[in-house]
Amino acid sequence: MTSVINWASLSAAQQQAALARPALADSASLSSQVAEIIRSVRANGDAALRAYSRQFDGLDSNPLVLSAAVKQAQLAKLLPERKAAIELAYDNIRKFHAAQLPCDIEVETSIGVSCQLKSRAIAAVGLYIPGGSAPLPSTVLMLGVPAQLAGCERIVLVTPPGKPQACDIAPEILYAAELCGINEIYTIGGAQAIAALAYGTDSIAKVDKIFGPGNRYVTEAKQQVSQDAQGAQIDMPAGPSEVLVLADSSANAAFVAADLLSQAEHGPDSQVILVSDSSNLIDAVQAEVNRQLALLPRKDIAAAALSHSRYILTADLAQAVAVTNAYAPEHLIVQTACDDELVEQFNSAASIFVGKWTPESAGDYASGTNHVLPTYGYSKTVSSLSLADFYRRFTVQKLSAQGMRNIGPAIVTLAQAESLDAHANAVRLRLAELNSIKG
Amino acid sequence: MTSVINWASLSAAQQQAALARPALADSASLSSQVAEIIRSVRANGDAALRAYSRQFDGLDSNPLVLSAAVKQAQLAKLLPERKAAIELAYDNIRKFHAAQLPCDIEVETSIGVSCQLKSRAIAAVGLYIPGGSAPLPSTVLMLGVPAQLAGCERIVLVTPPGKPQACDIAPEILYAAELCGINEIYTIGGAQAIAALAYGTDSIAKVDKIFGPGNRYVTEAKQQVSQDAQGAQIDMPAGPSEVLVLADSSANAAFVAADLLSQAEHGPDSQVILVSDSSNLIDAVQAEVNRQLALLPRKDIAAAALSHSRYILTADLAQAVAVTNAYAPEHLIVQTACDDELVEQFNSAASIFVGKWTPESAGDYASGTNHVLPTYGYSKTVSSLSLADFYRRFTVQKLSAQGMRNIGPAIVTLAQAESLDAHANAVRLRLAELNSIKG
Repeated sequence: MTSVINWASLSAAQQQAALARPALADSASLSSQVAEIIRSVRANGDAALRAYSRQFDGLDSNPLVLSAAVKQAQLAKLLPERKAAIELAYDNIRKFHAAQLPCDIEVETSIGVSCQLKSRAIAAVGLYIPGGSAPLPSTVLMLGVPAQLAGCERIVLVTPPGKPQACDIAPEILYAAELCGINEIYTIGGAQAIAALAYGTDSIAKVDKIFGPGNRYVTEAKQQVSQDAQGAQIDMPAGPSEVLVLADSSANAAFVAADLLSQAEHGPDSQVILVSDSSNLIDAVQAEVNRQLALLPRKDIAAAALSHSRYILTADLAQAVAVTNAYAPEHLIVQTACDDELVEQFNSAASIFVGKWTPESAGDYASGTNHVLPTYGYSKTVSSLSLADFYRRFTVQKLSAQGMRNIGPAIVTLAQAESLDAHANAVRLRLAELNSIKG
Repeated sequence: MTSVINWASLSAAQQQAALARPALADSASLSSQVAEIIRSVRANGDAALRAYSRQFDGLDSNPLVLSAAVKQAQLAKLLPERKAAIELAYDNIRKFHAAQLPCDIEVETSIGVSCQLKSRAIAAVGLYIPGGSAPLPSTVLMLGVPAQLAGCERIVLVTPPGKPQACDIAPEILYAAELCGINEIYTIGGAQAIAALAYGTDSIAKVDKIFGPGNRYVTEAKQQVSQDAQGAQIDMPAGPSEVLVLADSSANAAFVAADLLSQAEHGPDSQVILVSDSSNLIDAVQAEVNRQLALLPRKDIAAAALSHSRYILTADLAQAVAVTNAYAPEHLIVQTACDDELVEQFNSAASIFVGKWTPESAGDYASGTNHVLPTYGYSKTVSSLSLADFYRRFTVQKLSAQGMRNIGPAIVTLAQAESLDAHANAVRLRLAELNSIKG
């Protein structure tokens, strides 16, 4: 059993250490492996993709493109109960994201000076959907719904090839894609899929921005292509998933334990933290975690993640809030007698789950919020994925002759202050013409 | 005189080459120099900052902190005309950015399932303001106004030390800072200033996000600290500034030439492109460029930039729009007989200047739009700096017991489809409790 950390007894340095994320694995070799994959895909295109499919996926052949006929055949295998659940999740995610549709703005800042801020969909977006042992239709919805609402011209989905045949993609993924209007689907995964999206091949046209979670090869590849102006932008930096549960003595220990475990089962590097002002609650949660863990199919993964979990006892709830804010969790679950008051005090969590009936699973799947979230402390500055990430904002300005008369002299003065005479000239010429018209 | 490119006569590959940006200088040595500066500031803090101030700025002493008394003394030197111009620019920029204030969103996606998207200011922001030969008060306004409107707790300004004394900072910069409510000012520049903002020193507390333009050392340092989870986020990737002017035979050649020159004077790597369907207009603009250039104090810089400028003749305006969209300019100036129609057809410019009375200078200083813009083709995906960049968006969700009853079964189904049993368990436990309550 993990020992309990008594927060008030720690020095400032110990407190900082208690909230430190596990260091990301040394990535020098990872970085060069991924760079080589990207180089190879840029040089050899589809042939490189097929070679990696043989090497990494053990597939003799991979058509890369998922045809409409194959898609229909796979869709026929979808269980009705799963179809209905995907539809419910789609509806909720769509409702929440539709409320985020941007409005163009127009302001007349001075008489004759019109300024606009416009939002338009990014033209071509690539969605990376992890596959393999656990296909993730929920991630298709989280990326596909906002892309569909924004009206991106091309929405491209890539997912690792199925087995025994490349085209054996989970029907749940394909149905979620269908709801989101996604018709361009490729059976490629890993760093090679990111390279194909960023640079294009004969089969796959380049996209402008890449979204979605993946393993460390995918994450590293996203990072690398985003550093190249010829590559593609990405949604956000990534780190291992994490949850912090803040609970007091009123919380249901079994629920808290289940929430910690649902994060722990994601992967051995998932981070799980309980912060409480009640040692009784901490004891009860630990007992429940052990009881529930034994029953889980993925108990080995969850146990690995739990081995670096932390149980932090604070002097009071105010201290618990301070600990939470310092950690800046990706997921924050609050189960106390005063949830609504506390919510206003959090200043760094990416997604907050309020009260005993709101497990993290709700946001992972079907409440309507997006489950693509900044982790590893990035939520202090990086936003949860939202509709805005599928748009570019740009400005438009137009001065009338009157507008030029009104602000032209100030522009000349400021340009002179900055020693930029050509900037001043561009205005002086126009003011001179206006004076000649008037005269 | 630069030769005119006849667009329709080029092959696709030649067209692509004609719109290629100048390659960014090979940065291996730059990268290691900057990495060493960052390492040194992290290791030695203020002492490193002072050592770099001796080495790079030739200053025996640099107090680093600009005191309130010094600030007041400098402000007394401000010319009244410049004060008024800064105030006019401040007012317009504030009006345009105030119209961008975000609204929190709340949606009940299913009965009993409440989802919120909230925006809150990033706590601590660092603004980098270039100094040296040409101090840039306009950039203080472009970064300081949205930081002030967002209500960031700390707004930190860094700018290279003045001469002969470190505290000799241009009064224009200090007055712009005063209007924006900025009281934390440090006299440091270069990569070392970025390192201090990202990691903190004894004198300078760490910030969360760094904004602002700079030379290639500053740009490289921003890139490096943004790759480190312990560092700081940055506003956007950067490249040399650029303008594309799209003009037809109705345009005023002198105005067009002045606009091209005002971009060219920024630096020898600035890029300047004229696209027109009229060879007469191109001839007239080239003649005007030569005439005006000779009169400019910064004519050497402008001439260097003009040496890789391009004049592109298209078959018609539709082709001119296509060329513009393919280039994705930072600044796009449109001077034609049908400006308003064309504006709707542009899909990749970061800021558009419409009509003969709207030079780029207007947006650089005082129309109200932001002059911090994605360049180097990034505007296809990256947004113009706006108020949103000073906020973090996060989500909050709350299910009632009824909400859990409504969507819980679908969550269980989806978690099972993804083989995430602990996710399903967190809901099953709650549904069981609800059933026991009901029963």
